[in-house]
Order: sequence, then C-alpha cells, then structure tokens
Amino acid sequence: MSKAGNEMHDLAKLLFPICRSITGDGVRDSLKIISEHIPIVIKEVPSGTKVFDWVVPKEWNINDAFVEDKNGKIIIDFKKNNIHVMGYSTPIDKWVDLSVLQNHLHSLPDQPNAIPYVTSYYKENWGFCLSHNDRKKLKDGKYRIYIDSTLKDGSLTYGEYIIPGETEEEIFLSTYICHPSMANNELSGPVVTTFLAKWIKSKSRRYSYRIIFIPETIGSITYLSQNLNIIKKNVIAGFNISCIGDDKGYSYVASPYEDTYADRIVEHVLDKNYSNYIKYSFLDRGSDERQYCSPGINLPLVTLCRSKFGAYPEYHTSLDDLSLVTPGGLFGGLNYVRDCLKVIENNYIYQSRGLCEPQLGKHGLYKSGVKGSSKNTRRMKDLIAYCNGENDLLWILEKINCSFEELLPIINKLMKIGIIERLPLK
Amino acid sequence: MSKAGNEMHDLAKLLFPICRSITGDGVRDSLKIISEHIPIVIKEVPSGTKVFDWVVPKEWNINDAFVEDKNGKIIIDFKKNNIHVMGYSTPIDKWVDLSVLQNHLHSLPDQPNAIPYVTSYYKENWGFCLSHNDRKKLKDGKYRIYIDSTLKDGSLTYGEYIIPGETEEEIFLSTYICHPSMANNELSGPVVTTFLAKWIKSKSRRYSYRIIFIPETIGSITYLSQNLNIIKKNVIAGFNISCIGDDKGYSYVASPYEDTYADRIVEHVLDKNYSNYIKYSFLDRGSDERQYCSPGINLPLVTLCRSKFGAYPEYHTSLDDLSLVTPGGLFGGLNYVRDCLKVIENNYIYQSRGLCEPQLGKHGLYKSGVKGSSKNTRRMKDLIAYCNGENDLLWILEKINCSFEELLPIINKLMKIGIIERLPLK
Amino acid sequence: MSKAGNEMHDLAKLLFPICRSITGDGVRDSLKIISEHIPIVIKEVPSGTKVFDWVVPKEWNINDAFVEDKNGKIIIDFKKNNIHVMGYSTPIDKWVDLSVLQNHLHSLPDQPNAIPYVTSYYKENWGFCLSHNDRKKLKDGKYRIYIDSTLKDGSLTYGEYIIPGETEEEIFLSTYICHPSMANNELSGPVVTTFLAKWIKSKSRRYSYRIIFIPETIGSITYLSQNLNIIKKNVIAGFNISCIGDDKGYSYVASPYEDTYADRIVEHVLDKNYSNYIKYSFLDRGSDERQYCSPGINLPLVTLCRSKFGAYPEYHTSLDDLSLVTPGGLFGGLNYVRDCLKVIENNYIYQSRGLCEPQLGKHGLYKSGVKGSSKNTRRMKDLIAYCNGENDLLWILEKINCSFEELLPIINKLMKIGIIERLPLK
Repeated sequence: MSKAGNEMHDLAKLLFPICRSITGDGVRDSLKIISEHIPIVIKEVPSGTKVFDWVVPKEWNINDAFVEDKNGKIIIDFKKNNIHVMGYSTPIDKWVDLSVLQNHLHSLPDQPNAIPYVTSYYKENWGFCLSHNDRKKLKDGKYRIYIDSTLKDGSLTYGEYIIPGETEEEIFLSTYICHPSMANNELSGPVVTTFLAKWIKSKSRRYSYRIIFIPETIGSITYLSQNLNIIKKNVIAGFNISCIGDDKGYSYVASPYEDTYADRIVEHVLDKNYSNYIKYSFLDRGSDERQYCSPGINLPLVTLCRSKFGAYPEYHTSLDDLSLVTPGGLFGGLNYVRDCLKVIENNYIYQSRGLCEPQLGKHGLYKSGVKGSSKNTRRMKDLIAYCNGENDLLWILEKINCSFEELLPIINKLMKIGIIERLPLK
Repeated sequence: MSKAGNEMHDLAKLLFPICRSITGDGVRDSLKIISEHIPIVIKEVPSGTKVFDWVVPKEWNINDAFVEDKNGKIIIDFKKNNIHVMGYSTPIDKWVDLSVLQNHLHSLPDQPNAIPYVTSYYKENWGFCLSHNDRKKLKDGKYRIYIDSTLKDGSLTYGEYIIPGETEEEIFLSTYICHPSMANNELSGPVVTTFLAKWIKSKSRRYSYRIIFIPETIGSITYLSQNLNIIKKNVIAGFNISCIGDDKGYSYVASPYEDTYADRIVEHVLDKNYSNYIKYSFLDRGSDERQYCSPGINLPLVTLCRSKFGAYPEYHTSLDDLSLVTPGGLFGGLNYVRDCLKVIENNYIYQSRGLCEPQLGKHGLYKSGVKGSSKNTRRMKDLIAYCNGENDLLWILEKINCSFEELLPIINKLMKIGIIERLPLK
Repeated sequence: MSKAGNEMHDLAKLLFPICRSITGDGVRDSLKIISEHIPIVIKEVPSGTKVFDWVVPKEWNINDAFVEDKNGKIIIDFKKNNIHVMGYSTPIDKWVDLSVLQNHLHSLPDQPNAIPYVTSYYKENWGFCLSHNDRKKLKDGKYRIYIDSTLKDGSLTYGEYIIPGETEEEIFLSTYICHPSMANNELSGPVVTTFLAKWIKSKSRRYSYRIIFIPETIGSITYLSQNLNIIKKNVIAGFNISCIGDDKGYSYVASPYEDTYADRIVEHVLDKNYSNYIKYSFLDRGSDERQYCSPGINLPLVTLCRSKFGAYPEYHTSLDDLSLVTPGGLFGGLNYVRDCLKVIENNYIYQSRGLCEPQLGKHGLYKSGVKGSSKNTRRMKDLIAYCNGENDLLWILEKINCSFEELLPIINKLMKIGIIERLPLK
C-alpha cells in the first residue's frame, strides 16, 4: 500500500508551491485541488464578520515581492520561496537604507541556513525572511523594497465535507490549510485528511464524519462560532490532524482533562500498536485544539501528530520541506488516524447472553486436550468473562491486554453464534 | 494443634484411592466418608437436566481397566493408579496394534516420570495415561485394551451443608470432589473444607454458611442454576477453596474487578499475616470462580489457594500425591481460611459515642507518664480517632496498619466501657 | 522585615519566665501581655464544668517550690526554672528520705543535661524534675520537700479574638498557652499567632477569623463544647499553630483523611514555596488537631509546625529555650502561616467569559513574534484554558505548576480587562 503514500506525496508536491495564508486565493486554489479528490463544499465568510472575541480579517493576496540592491540585483525573491515574505505584508515599493530594511528582516542565528516563517496577521506591517547567512552578506546602501500585495475586504475561505453515517453522532476531523510552502506543518494534515476522507467514504460506517479544512485559529474560531450547536450536540470524538507526515515517531496532544472518548481511543491505539510514542499534555498545545478544547467549547478532541509542531528543528522554517515529509511518513500518518477510526467504529458495549460460561465445545469453539488452552481460546474466554453489559470493548481490550485487530474476529464469531451481543455505548 | 493437620491428612489418605469423576459412585463414596465428619445433605441431579448452556451428562462408573501385552502381561493397570484411565473412557475390550493404541495414550515428555491426568467428559472416547518413560518402552505388536466402565443415564451428585447463623446473610464456601487420586488438586479442598465446617459449627456465628462439595464446572453450573436466586440474595462473600494443602506459599485469585468484600477480606488477611503471598488476577482463573464470577452471576467471591492449580509442576499428574500435601500444609490452609472468616465475622462499622477524645485516664485506660505512650494506648487512640460511623474495621486496620488479632481485644474493651459502639455494615 | 522577627522574639522573652499551666494566673498573666498587642477577649470557665467526656479541673497556682538538703542547701529550685516542679503538684512541706524522694523525681538518662517537663493534671501528686546528672549527685539522707501551691476551685482561662470579614465564613486559628518555660513548644505558637492576628487585622479580608489562645487538650475540648454549632457552621479551614519558631524545616500534620480544604491549601504552599518539608500523617498527631479532627467534630483543619512536637530532641525539656527559637525562625513561621492565608483569601473559581481563546493582541496582552511566547504569556493562556467555571485557583495552580505569587498579577490583569471573572467557591 505504498501506493497511497506516493499518491499523497504527489498531492503534497502539487500543493507545495502555492502561497497560502489565513485568507486569499492560495487557500482557494488549494481547496480546489483537494476537491478533485473529495467533494468538499467551499465556504466564504466575509471580512469583518464577528466571531467570538475575534473579527474575520481583510483578505490578503500577493502577486510578487522582492528586495533589489542598488545594482539591480534581486537579493530576496518571493518567486524562489514564498516564505521569504512575511505573511500579510502590506504593499510597498520604495528605496530604503539597509538600516531601515534590517528592522523588517527576520532570520534565525541558531539555524543560519533556514528561512524562518513569520506572519503579522493582526498588525499591519511588511517584512522579509531570509537565512541568517544571507542576511550577514548584506552591505550598507539603498535597497528597493517591492511587495505587490493587496489587503482589503474579502473573505475567509474554508472547505467542509460531511459524510453521513448510520447515526447522527459525529466524528469531527479538522486540519488546516493556511501555511505556505512548508510540508509537515502543514501540508501533511490536509493531504492525509484528504486520503482519510476517501477511505471513510469507501467504507460502510456507523458514525457521520464532519471533516473541515480551515485556516488555523481564526478558521476554527469562525467555524465554531457558526456551527457550535450542532457540533456540541453531535460530536462524540474529534481529532485535529497536524504535522503527520514525517518519518519519526507518533504523538498526540491530550485534551485538557485527559478524560474524553478521543483520549481513550488514541491511548489504546498507541499503547497497543505503536512503540515509543509521546503523549503531550494540553499544556504543550499549539494547534486548533486550543480552540476546540477551550472552556465552553470543550469538544472531546485530541490532536494527532507524528513530530509535533514546535518539537522538531525544521518547524516553521524553509527546512520543513518535502524531503522531511515522505511517502512512508504520510502513509504511517494515514494509518495512525485510520487505526483510531477503526476502533471507534467497532467500540460497543458487549454482553454475554447466557449465565455462567458457555459450553464452548458444544459450539465448536473448543477442543479438549491435556493441559491448558490455546491463546485464542483464552482470549475468547477472557472476552466472555468481561462482557457484562457495562464494559465497552476499549475497556476490555485494556483489561485483557489485547489489540483490537486480534480480538475483532473472535468477537464476530461469538456474535454470530449468539454467545455475546452488542449494546449501544452509554 | 498439629492434631487437626494429622486428622486432615488421615482423611485425605482415606479418600485418595477412590476413583472420583464429575459423576458416579466415586463421588458418592467420597461424600459418604465426609458425612461421617459433618452432616452434609447429598443431592442427585438427573442426567439430561438442562443447566444454563450445559446439560448434566451421563453418569460414568468404572470397575477395572488395563492394557495387556501379547505375553499376557498387564502393562497399564487401573488398579495401581486410577488416573491411568482417561476420565469418562467408554467401555472396550479388544486387541489393537500399537499404532492404534498410541492414538489413545497420553504422556508428558517434559515430565517423563509423571502420569498425566486427562478427561474427556463431553466427547465419547477412551484412553490411557502413563509415564513417558513407560510409553517409550512399548514395543510393536498387539495389545489388549480392556475398560470395564459404564456411561449411562444416572445423576450428578453433590453435597451441601448449610449452617444457620444470626442473620440470613451468607458466607458461601465451595470446593470440588471430582478429581481422582490427586492430593493438592483436589483432595486438599474437600478435606480442609470439611474441617473448616466442623470449626464453624463449633462457634457461635453472625453469618449463615452455605458449604458445597461439588464436581468442578458442571457442578457449580448445576448448583447455580438451581440456587441462583437465594445465593444472589444472601451471599455477601464467597470463597472457592482449591489446592490448599501443600507446604509452599499462599495465594488467591481475585474477583474480576478486584472490588468485592471477599477481595477486601483476603487482601487484609494476607497483607497482615502472610508474607510473600501471590495475588493472581482473574485472568489467571481456572477453578469454579470462572462460574461464580461470570457476568450475571457475579458473586463477591475469590479463590483461596496455597500453590494454585496450574502453578506447580505436579499439577494434574500422579506427582500430586500425599507427599506433596502434608499435615502442616493442610493445617496452614485451614488457618488461612479461618483467618478470613474470623475477620468477616468481626467486621463492623464502629463509632465513637462521644465528641472529642475520651478522657482515657478516667476510664482506667491510660497512665500519665513522661513522654510518649505505649503501643497499645496508641492503637486505642488511633482506633477511636477513626471510629466515625462510616469506616468499617477492615478500613481502620489498613489505615492504622494493624492486624485484626492485635486490635480485637482493644475494641472489645472500648465497647464494654461504652466509648465506641458498633453499627451494622452498610 | 526581620523587625517582626525581633519583635516576636522580644515578646517570647517577656513571656518565657511565666509559669503557665492549663489553668491559673500564669495563663492570665500571659494573655494580659498578649492583649497589649491584640484586643483578645479573656474568658473564664469554672472548675467542674462538664465538657464532653471531661470536667474542667481545679485551678492550680504556685508561688514557690524547692528541695533542700540536710545542710540547708537548696538543690532544686523552682525560681531558677519553673519546669523543675511537676505541673499540678499538690502542696507539701516535709522531710523525706532520699528513697521516698526518688519516687517523685523525673530525669532523662538519655539526655543527662536536660530537665524534663512533666505534668500530672488529673491524678493528684507532687514531683520534681531535674537533669539526670544532678540526680546522680544526690546522696542518701533526708530532704525537705517544699511546694507552695494551691489546687482549688477556680477556672480555666482562655483568650479569643474574632476579626470579622466580608463573609461569615471563618478561618479558625488555634494555639496554646499552657506550657511553662519552653520556647518552641510552646511560646512560638502564641507569639506567631499574635503577630499573625495583627497582620490579618491590618488587611482587608474576605473571611472572618476566629483566633483562640487556649490550654492544650482541655482548652480545645472546652472551647469546642461551648462553640461547636457556630464553628461547624462557619469554619471552612482551620490551622492549629504549634512549634513554629525554630530555624529548621517546615512541616504539617494532615487531617485524618487528608482531604480537607486546609490540607489542599498547605500542600500547595509547601509544594511551591518550601523545599524538603515534611508531611505528617494524622497518625503522627499530638496537638489539638486530636480534638478538632475527632469524629463528630471533624473540622477541616491541619496543624502547622516547623520542627514538630516529639520530632526534635529538645522537645519537652529545658533545652527547648530561646536559643532554639530565633527571630528568623519565628519570622519564617509567621510567613508560612501568612502564605496559607494569602492563598485562601484569593482562592476563587475562575471562568473565561468568552468562548474560544480571546484575541490577546487586541487587549494589549500579546506581541506577535517569530517563535514561541514569553513565560508570562504562556501562563496567561494556560490560566484562561483552565478557567472553566469549575476549577478553583488552587487546582489551576497545581495543574499548570505555578505559584500563587506568580499568577496573581496575571489574574488581576485578566479580571480587569474582563477576560475572566471570578465565582464563589462551591
């Protein structure tokens, strides 16, 4: 199945050069490409719309930008890498001294080869980002600053894809599409979520799925402000998907009280299927779980990551590129989320239908022997022993220390024979 | 008091040669011998009776069995050891080739001197068990197979002894009498339980005691199916007694959720009185706790063992004999159960009758001194400090880290003076 | 602020020579000196008054006492150290043999230079205490025993100071004034409590404060028997203050179930502000927490100490003097209690007033930057994230691992802007 990995990496390559921000045509172009895979509905929310404590900002678009020296040489070029321009930079075209320019430059002395990623969404300003090595080469003199951008009333754009299931209860999946040319944070999220949506749609499903592609922070706040009632009514578990495409380990950011259904699901999946994962406290949050889990919103949601935002050196620099994010990394990320969804789709309360142990031999489930019984027979007996009509499957898996994949066929066999039955979750 | 140990070992010696199974005259003969000690009522449940998912099987009896070689030499002889014959073997008398015989032989390559114990209750078949060393000596040729057994409608036999107490609340004690010539698993259980019953009967008692001697699995299922309502109504704690006569350590099998009154009792007794005991999870179950603690039955029961079934090398072989089970081992097992019953008989909620500390000196309970107070005075004060009308004695003993034996005389003194009073358990 | 330390030490020096006991003029004189600092109301409870299981004893006063040898030499002299006389010694004036005298002497072989502190409140007797070295020097012969004391109907004396606050809910502070010339146990308690009361009075306050200076045991029993209803109705947290003036570590004695509001407060203060403190179980109790936390009384109270009674070698001997208790030690003790009161005065439930994160930049609380945010900004965001209208400040401080002092200014800023609001405790 590295086919899906390669396809995801190809999609990431297609999306990579587009200059996305929290608003603007970069978002629209990206969503349009995604909509060739899944039928997302694209929504526009006008600038100036009040969303809780915030206001949807003006729309920003950019055609070109550069810094030119007195000899006419382009020394910083938006066309070469769109993170050279600070996000939301206001338009400008004038000659300034190096001393003035320096006040608008951003670089990282500790990572002298990396171009940092910087934005100024809510304070109008302009700026350029460059490697510290390049910055040190700048000589005194005049420089032409040219930014051909627009910042004016428009709208915030996002994509929504709702896949109905047997019940109105929803699994909520959120990822963000506001970052320009960076790969793990954040093309991995939208790319994995796109392929995840295709997979969900291809399967019969118990739950409905609400999947959104939004700009970070202002996008989740906007979405919540416009959909809060239905989300609070229907969502039983949510997963924020971010930084999920590199080749390193797996991690998640727990909910504030580490007690939601989503926490239980991801903890089980990681415990049983993934070694050496990292559990981050909500104090280490930084993505849209900040909004989804805030007081009063309080969704049962965790953030799923491979190398988490802020926890890898390439984070928010030009080094976060498509060599860091790989086909195998994306495929692992996809499987990680799918593992969570498989468990959630199959988690029920199970109940033994009779009293005392069933006579397994009579049902063809047991061979008499000398000593002991096979691992599978033991699993079966343990399962039955804890199917008391109160415990859900997740609880039983933890109790008998068994993975979901191992127990599911046994459950299905016992259900078919009628030894156990399943009940809805409480 | 090694007198009781010797008497128990003598009883075990008397019972040892009898060929018991889950039905048949071996069970009846054994119960008859036990009834010379305690007035058990012997019950018969007809073959074919439906008991939950099971049916009471045909009754099996056996007179003789052997394997004879072509020279007329008896090479496997039921009369020498009744576990040579697979339990529930059907009758047969014919000459077969060694190759055919091999398909019906059971031995243990890893324990080449031991005869294994094998049964085939629910699939009609015949078989012989022998040491692997003897098996290796068998030469090609014809062998006469002779089993003089009967398998026909009859009944399942068990013994019940109910000792009434001050209340209808019951302590439930269960042990099994279905194993042929083996000592720890399982003559230790019936023998210790017989002497336990004599001791219970000899004392005034708060609780009623329901004591049963049954065949394992089918016996407990049968008993539950016919007594479920009264048991669920009256039983406040139960102890399944098995493998309780060897000289090694002490152990118990916890209930499925490790939260019953029986769990609390045995944990306290082992913590305070026995070092290096083993607590087994319900996942390590294997005796009748499987039925008593199954969903829907859910009795507050644990299994008490010394070396637990499956956890000692002699288990289910001819090596489990009366050199493994000793007078001292049986006496230790008896005391272990008695310790549990002593605590349960004396466990109440206690309440200080006055406010603030009582003036101990006034009640003759305290001598003024220079510094500190005696250990007993400290125990007394600690007891009073936690007699709040909510905590039961078990809780207090854990809190103040004190054994039951140490605190009981202090409790009795304070009760007599009227400083504390006792309340029923909630 | 070592000014307060020196002032407290001066007060201790003034009180030190007075011969206090559980009744008598020593208590009255001491309370009179304290009343020059704070307006305590002095109460008298007559001898013979029934208080729960106890009776207020006769009042004891003493003018002089000595032991004189046959040469007329005073060898034990009450005037030199009032703990030479056993507390509540009955009057006597006669010549006795050394053998008789020995039965009335108390000394400590293991601390041969220390005079022990001994009392006999409830059994009429007389006695002298001396260093073991001095005792060994006694020669055979006659000795004149002279104790000029009175033991007759009178009263038990205590001081009470109630400082009203915004609410009727009370913080209860108790210390004892029954020990003669010893410093840590117990002049440190009354001295620190006196200065604490001055500080409380000088501040605006949310809670009312009930502060009592009583004799140990019989005093707290008497006070409880006469004020139980109002105390049980109003007190939300109590602190018994004892042994709080030496230079060593900090400690507390937990309540019986370690679950009261007072436990939460002191655990937080010690965890965050004091290293290497000792938490004592209620099983290590020994001061008036014995009464305040007894069944039926059950106040939410802990005892605050530096070197706890019984846990330092000078305890209850002449070595517990004003070189052991220092200005710095007393000042540290004062701050320890003040830290507890500061937290309790400021502990509320806090609630975010809006949904999702507030836009901090808009409120002037955030500067956009390259990577990360300052520690204070992080603290602010963490605080808001947990202000859910359920958690109190104490809970949040533990969760985000922050000290009260660090977070209070941030709370005040967010309250002022209106981002969070505070709610009463539940």
